[in-house]
Amino acid sequence: MGEFDLIARYFTRPVRRSPLGVGDDCALLQPRPGMQLAVSTDLLLEGRHFLSTVDPRRLGHKALAVNLSDLAACGAQPLAFTLAIALPRIDEPWLADFSEGLLALADRHDCELVGGDTTRGPLAINITVFGEVPAGQALLRSGAQAGDDVWVSGTLGDARLALEAFRGTFSLPQEVFEAARLRLEQPQARVALGLALRGIASAAIDLSDGLLGDLGHVLDRSGVGATLEAERVLPLLAAAPAMKLATPAVLELVLAGGDDYELAFTAAAARRAEVEAAARQTGTPVTRIGHIDGTRGLRVHDAQGQPLAQRFAGFDHFL
Amino acid sequence: MGEFDLIARYFTRPVRRSPLGVGDDCALLQPRPGMQLAVSTDLLLEGRHFLSTVDPRRLGHKALAVNLSDLAACGAQPLAFTLAIALPRIDEPWLADFSEGLLALADRHDCELVGGDTTRGPLAINITVFGEVPAGQALLRSGAQAGDDVWVSGTLGDARLALEAFRGTFSLPQEVFEAARLRLEQPQARVALGLALRGIASAAIDLSDGLLGDLGHVLDRSGVGATLEAERVLPLLAAAPAMKLATPAVLELVLAGGDDYELAFTAAAARRAEVEAAARQTGTPVTRIGHIDGTRGLRVHDAQGQPLAQRFAGFDHFL
Repeated sequence: MGEFDLIARYFTRPVRRSPLGVGDDCALLQPRPGMQLAVSTDLLLEGRHFLSTVDPRRLGHKALAVNLSDLAACGAQPLAFTLAIALPRIDEPWLADFSEGLLALADRHDCELVGGDTTRGPLAINITVFGEVPAGQALLRSGAQAGDDVWVSGTLGDARLALEAFRGTFSLPQEVFEAARLRLEQPQARVALGLALRGIASAAIDLSDGLLGDLGHVLDRSGVGATLEAERVLPLLAAAPAMKLATPAVLELVLAGGDDYELAFTAAAARRAEVEAAARQTGTPVTRIGHIDGTRGLRVHDAQGQPLAQRFAGFDHFL
Repeated sequence: MGEFDLIARYFTRPVRRSPLGVGDDCALLQPRPGMQLAVSTDLLLEGRHFLSTVDPRRLGHKALAVNLSDLAACGAQPLAFTLAIALPRIDEPWLADFSEGLLALADRHDCELVGGDTTRGPLAINITVFGEVPAGQALLRSGAQAGDDVWVSGTLGDARLALEAFRGTFSLPQEVFEAARLRLEQPQARVALGLALRGIASAAIDLSDGLLGDLGHVLDRSGVGATLEAERVLPLLAAAPAMKLATPAVLELVLAGGDDYELAFTAAAARRAEVEAAARQTGTPVTRIGHIDGTRGLRVHDAQGQPLAQRFAGFDHFL
């Protein structure tokens, strides 16, 4: 099997919406009038972003999910994506599973594969995703204002807990491990919530490098600071009740774990009911964890309103 | 220096046209009314697509040029691109040179860097490029018809000649080597020609894997065949006059060399004057090398009109 058969067998499907899909020099996209195209790209490397032992179905899912999560953070509706992939060899069962996981998630979001590139090399996956958002309505990192609430979707820290279990840092009960592993290997992009928050949230970001680091980008771009409340943050670790973890360890996982692919967003305090309605409509749990204030920097307070001394580091691929 | 400083220093520039560039979850593009967005992506790996010793300025140039070449083949005007890059380490002089070569070419085509992803890993570069083309006017691979002329731009085979010189297959005079090496390391995408051929060419493709293989895609998608004339093809190797190469070697280089990033296109015989005018206007040499016919398959005839017995293989990353 050569490169072109591989593309034909595993990665070519008729387009339903785009004017031109896989098989020409370019794909063609046609955003509707008044719409802007949101674009994001993520490069995943074996050994750095995923373990070599991961189920290829879950890997296919995750490679697209981390990109859809960026669209979610902009409030964009998924349209299409391209896939560039380097493969060490043509392994047909692996390709069948990978493309199955990839395209199942793509179908769930009506996001079509329109093009790509295939080469031999160490396993690397680069997806570029395209979404549509009405001009001027994209959720940006730069809109947070003093007084806004800070919210997050879902649970945080469980993906990192699974990674640490793989590394041997923690020993987890089987059930806890399987649940956390699913969070690490098969994250769910919060696309519906992102769409529902258009016009309600003042700023949003997707959580890939850890809450403190990512929320820090919102604060930088918005020129504001934030105070988070530890007792609202601690319960975000889904695995917490099943384990006896010390508070600093839980805080570290939740605040700096990474790989969560949840949304952090801000909204005016007057819009709490609308945020809660958006969460209910889309079946997405959300938690209010603090507020934006005018003093630059990011603080975490304990139940007595005292700043925590613990220091956290967000994820940086080069530090 | 961390990931975010690296992006800020080498890969962040204010956008001039796009509503949102580097620094948020997504970039935002705004195609003009009536325009379709052409999208293409190319993944370049060290050791497979470029040598580890290549000048990083030329590598930055080439990484974008091979993508612009896909836009050229569709007749699309470059708009913007994203860059996903894996770097083994932060090497500031290398990054300065790489981004200089990359952004110089981007500026020449008014194509802005709007987003990307950066990670540590074996050197790999994935650019996804966006262009604009009026709806229904993109040059496709599927439009060739029996009776059409087959054309190519520029010269072919010199890039492969340089690669073979690096490999030690040929020993080239210094001047010939430097010229061929420039073709390999710093290809020029035929964007202006692609734009000028809209409404004139019936089909087009960019030549990355070798003329026979790439033209074969046009024939497959168009449901036709082609006959090329060897005496029109042989002079396409720019280095030929300076070297005493046997005819089969020249044919192999020109027809199956790869890495040319020229355009092959077809146009009705009645439009020869228009093709030549488009070539003149854009300062791009073009050569008519054969014709499309109804009999499937791709034939090369000698000066006596007899089919050549020589067999050629296009480039396939997995064969």
